Amino acid sequence: MSETARRQQAIAAAAKAGVDALVITHLPDVRWLCGFTGSNAALVLPVSSRLRPVLVTDGRYTAQAKSEARGVKVVIAPKAAAIAASEWAAKSRLRRCGFDEGNTTVAALKQMQAALPGKLRRGFFAPIGSLVSTLRWVKDKQEISRMRAAAALGCRLFDTIFDHIVPGASEAEVSLALEYNARVAGATEMSFPSIVASGPRSALPHGRASSARLPRRGFVTLDFGVVLDGYCSDMTRTVHLGRASAEERRVYEAVLEAQEAGVAAVRPGISGGDVDEAARSVLRRARLDKWFTHSTGHGVGLEIHEGPRLAAGQTQKLEPGMVVTIEPGVYLPGKFGVRIEDMVLVTQTGAEILTPSTRAWIEL
Amino acid sequence: MSETARRQQAIAAAAKAGVDALVITHLPDVRWLCGFTGSNAALVLPVSSRLRPVLVTDGRYTAQAKSEARGVKVVIAPKAAAIAASEWAAKSRLRRCGFDEGNTTVAALKQMQAALPGKLRRGFFAPIGSLVSTLRWVKDKQEISRMRAAAALGCRLFDTIFDHIVPGASEAEVSLALEYNARVAGATEMSFPSIVASGPRSALPHGRASSARLPRRGFVTLDFGVVLDGYCSDMTRTVHLGRASAEERRVYEAVLEAQEAGVAAVRPGISGGDVDEAARSVLRRARLDKWFTHSTGHGVGLEIHEGPRLAAGQTQKLEPGMVVTIEPGVYLPGKFGVRIEDMVLVTQTGAEILTPSTRAWIEL
Repeated sequence: MSETARRQQAIAAAAKAGVDALVITHLPDVRWLCGFTGSNAALVLPVSSRLRPVLVTDGRYTAQAKSEARGVKVVIAPKAAAIAASEWAAKSRLRRCGFDEGNTTVAALKQMQAALPGKLRRGFFAPIGSLVSTLRWVKDKQEISRMRAAAALGCRLFDTIFDHIVPGASEAEVSLALEYNARVAGATEMSFPSIVASGPRSALPHGRASSARLPRRGFVTLDFGVVLDGYCSDMTRTVHLGRASAEERRVYEAVLEAQEAGVAAVRPGISGGDVDEAARSVLRRARLDKWFTHSTGHGVGLEIHEGPRLAAGQTQKLEPGMVVTIEPGVYLPGKFGVRIEDMVLVTQTGAEILTPSTRAWIEL
Repeated sequence: MSETARRQQAIAAAAKAGVDALVITHLPDVRWLCGFTGSNAALVLPVSSRLRPVLVTDGRYTAQAKSEARGVKVVIAPKAAAIAASEWAAKSRLRRCGFDEGNTTVAALKQMQAALPGKLRRGFFAPIGSLVSTLRWVKDKQEISRMRAAAALGCRLFDTIFDHIVPGASEAEVSLALEYNARVAGATEMSFPSIVASGPRSALPHGRASSARLPRRGFVTLDFGVVLDGYCSDMTRTVHLGRASAEERRVYEAVLEAQEAGVAAVRPGISGGDVDEAARSVLRRARLDKWFTHSTGHGVGLEIHEGPRLAAGQTQKLEPGMVVTIEPGVYLPGKFGVRIEDMVLVTQTGAEILTPSTRAWIEL
């Protein structure tokens, strides 16, 4: 799907929401709709086909906007793009513009309103939520191909990291090797600060790689992702150094079973809450659910955390083309933790794992 | 200055602003006030000494909050920290809480208000701007020492990168070498995506390192920073490969003169606008100001972009302990660009450059 088709989708949603135009300031949404990747940008997307979409940015990005942005008129303004875009919208006789209240600060909205003639302010900006971000939940063909490539790179990095996972190496050294290899392979950056959590630190669900040294015996959890062509990967594997205790084996097997149950539940029409329950109920039967302290997964794409959320109470149904993570974990404070995570594409009939690195027990 | 002293500063500012408490959700502010570095956090800081400050986070961070947070009661809640903090504030009989409208989305404020009993909602949350972030502009002794270390690491990285700056190497390879060395030296991450912009790409003020290859003749601009112990560095140098043209030399000398004039202007009591003008006027005399398309500098600390801004019209006065960048540039579209940037500490009497790597002409 081209940017043009994406804009048509957004315009249809805007018309349905009863606004004249969208003023889009969330950068991944701007990129998705016109290809521009600069750090100061606002896109005005009018519903009427008589008005062209306008991308506003500043003088630092004149050349970049020209080369990247497709199908939009580029306006360079020496001020915050959201403010210049608001002025442009008012001058173009737009009268009701949708904005994403989840990605607009209270102060920014005030500034956007202050940029309007006084008589227009009331009701000019209408909160329409994450309308564009929600469209991004379902990936098109080009996006799926990029996400496949990002996920595959993640797997290659995991499959070749074992030489670095040795007692005495620091967590930071392991993450550095991973990240160096990622960059050499073409990743522009990591999609989030890599987690390398070893020994008792594996009980920290968000244990960023530290100066801690890998133990002779114990778990090492690696949770990392790359950004390739703009798209994020995300995967977690937990391996064991030295001989494991029976409790460690039992917890690992339970998390693996929960993760497989989560993956098996993924199909069009199931709710995020039901996928979460599929994984969580396995840990409940193993009397470990108390230690599964986060949700089962989230969408991923241009952003590392997108919708839909796979968590208790989420009624949003999965659709073909969505890419979500399935990542249950069990964390025993002061002892150890295990998490296993895959990226999964929702297909017409079920799910396809994009991160096929083995999830079987690995003892190094 | 300890976190306790910082909290006293913030409490005094809150009392002056006429609120009972601050509800702080901007993560660098939370970290500055209590040491906690997790990604979901809200700090309630009551003015009354009868109530203890409360840090709210979720179950992923139980152990981390216990080990990092100092002088605060930790509350673990299975929901967004800002919402749980709002509930806690209402239950603690607080009646008017300041929040930072520049770092709170319209949707988040609505959720925070919805967490209150209906009769309390009106006027409970009062916008008080970036009150805590503004306190952070002036660094204390411990912070200055950390910023010195981060800046010094940045200089060491620049001083040892020349072997990688050769015709035919890709910009991405140069940035990777820089970033690898940074991590080996202890940086946790880069403070922003490194800019390595070569040849005509040096005319892009924000030219992130790309697959473009360094030319036999032309400029290479390196703009990068590390994060060390939480604090960011930021510096830019522009070097020349091969023999330069007279125009290239002339532009370089003008930018250098502008940068030195900017640094020389820094002292307590001068406004951000006047520092900008000191640098800009040099380029005006050289008839190059038209191509200086951004502001002269910004504060830096726990965040890469903090206040004060050094830009036209900024009346904010510099104070001892502030750390700012001085980074004029000239960008001739399609031809080349030059930027030179230092981090500068405002002292009692003037300025101290924290990034003393040579700014003299370098031809490789």
